[in-house]
Amino acid sequence: MKTGTLYLIPTPIDNRELKDILLKEDIEKIVKLKNFVVETPKNARRNLGTLEMETPMREIAMMELSEHTRDNGLRELLKPLYAGEDVGLMSDAGSPSIADPGFRLVIEAQNADILVVPFVGPSSIILALMGSGLNGQSFAFNGYIPKDVEELRKRIRLFESLALKLGQTQIYMDTPYRNQKLYEHTVSVCDPNTYLCIALNVGGEDGYIKTMSIADWRKNDIQLPKQPCLFLINRI
Amino acid sequence: MKTGTLYLIPTPIDNRELKDILLKEDIEKIVKLKNFVVETPKNARRNLGTLEMETPMREIAMMELSEHTRDNGLRELLKPLYAGEDVGLMSDAGSPSIADPGFRLVIEAQNADILVVPFVGPSSIILALMGSGLNGQSFAFNGYIPKDVEELRKRIRLFESLALKLGQTQIYMDTPYRNQKLYEHTVSVCDPNTYLCIALNVGGEDGYIKTMSIADWRKNDIQLPKQPCLFLINRI
Repeated sequence: MKTGTLYLIPTPIDNRELKDILLKEDIEKIVKLKNFVVETPKNARRNLGTLEMETPMREIAMMELSEHTRDNGLRELLKPLYAGEDVGLMSDAGSPSIADPGFRLVIEAQNADILVVPFVGPSSIILALMGSGLNGQSFAFNGYIPKDVEELRKRIRLFESLALKLGQTQIYMDTPYRNQKLYEHTVSVCDPNTYLCIALNVGGEDGYIKTMSIADWRKNDIQLPKQPCLFLINRI
Repeated sequence: MKTGTLYLIPTPIDNRELKDILLKEDIEKIVKLKNFVVETPKNARRNLGTLEMETPMREIAMMELSEHTRDNGLRELLKPLYAGEDVGLMSDAGSPSIADPGFRLVIEAQNADILVVPFVGPSSIILALMGSGLNGQSFAFNGYIPKDVEELRKRIRLFESLALKLGQTQIYMDTPYRNQKLYEHTVSVCDPNTYLCIALNVGGEDGYIKTMSIADWRKNDIQLPKQPCLFLINRI
């Protein structure tokens, strides 16, 4: 029997609805699904509620996946796929499997030779890079930066040296309430000629992307709000 | 006077139409535009022809940007923005400014303090990473790999050591007609325990993403077609 397909479904990272952040052809596939693996069933139902699902919501199977799910739990989640049914993987916000426990189900599906199909959705990393004007031919996303101040400053220095040596745009972030601290360390550590792009809440309606030299950032008195924010550095 | 906004508009990387790869709310903004900066006007008109533009096509300004455009030419392209008009930037295929000369206009706009707004579109890099099941918390896109065989093998070894040391998924590519060569060098250079994901024509209708250990890839006799292909390596 043919195994089902695992669809990876991005969800909104702001207050927009699922139906507004996905492509029409992908929505046509989602409304036919009867099986989902999700982070929180309540959130998943709210998101799917904005689509015209072909199956009544109470008949749709919602299986949970979190960072606490064990390996045998993962294999359990693949069962509908072995039975030939398609499954949608959704997290509470953003793209499943990027900075998200969903990747564990994806690699399990890959190991089981199940077809994996990711759907297009807003990627704050790509949007920030497009809008930054910095080198998009070579870039690294480094995820969260360390909390410890000395480690953090060492890491920013490492990113700047990699940007200089490889021309590779370095992308990093912290939790929103530490944005201001990360901004201040970045402008104090980096060379005045290095360019910094601040990409705040990108993909959201009030998204904002601004690139300037460190020298120019230093001339302004910036207060970053507590919203998701990416930092990008490179030379131009 | 308020300056206009520079919208960055992704275009199809396969045979789908522009209207099918963009979000509805972004299409609503595009159909109002009267000024575009494009790679090839003929291709841009064909792409826009699938939308219901509010202005007749012959009255829409199409300005060209290529890798040969000089710096004073870039400033010329910003003129409508200074006059308060919005401009759409489109290349022939893919996201403007990622691996594309469009980034030069974006950084010029950033330097001129013009608002830059990127639109969501298919990113083969993000789709490949989502579908690979490899670490999406830290990754590097390295663009094209060198042609010279010794350099190429050295580079793959460097990627593998970075993946091991940093846990950072390394993504690289070559022009489609050299896919097979790059595949063969990758499986011969890397350790059997390293995982390789082949992401072929992702975002396209016949897209294909497969992750296996190098040991398992070696057991198969693979012939890669001459389609856009990303290579991703890491440990799991």
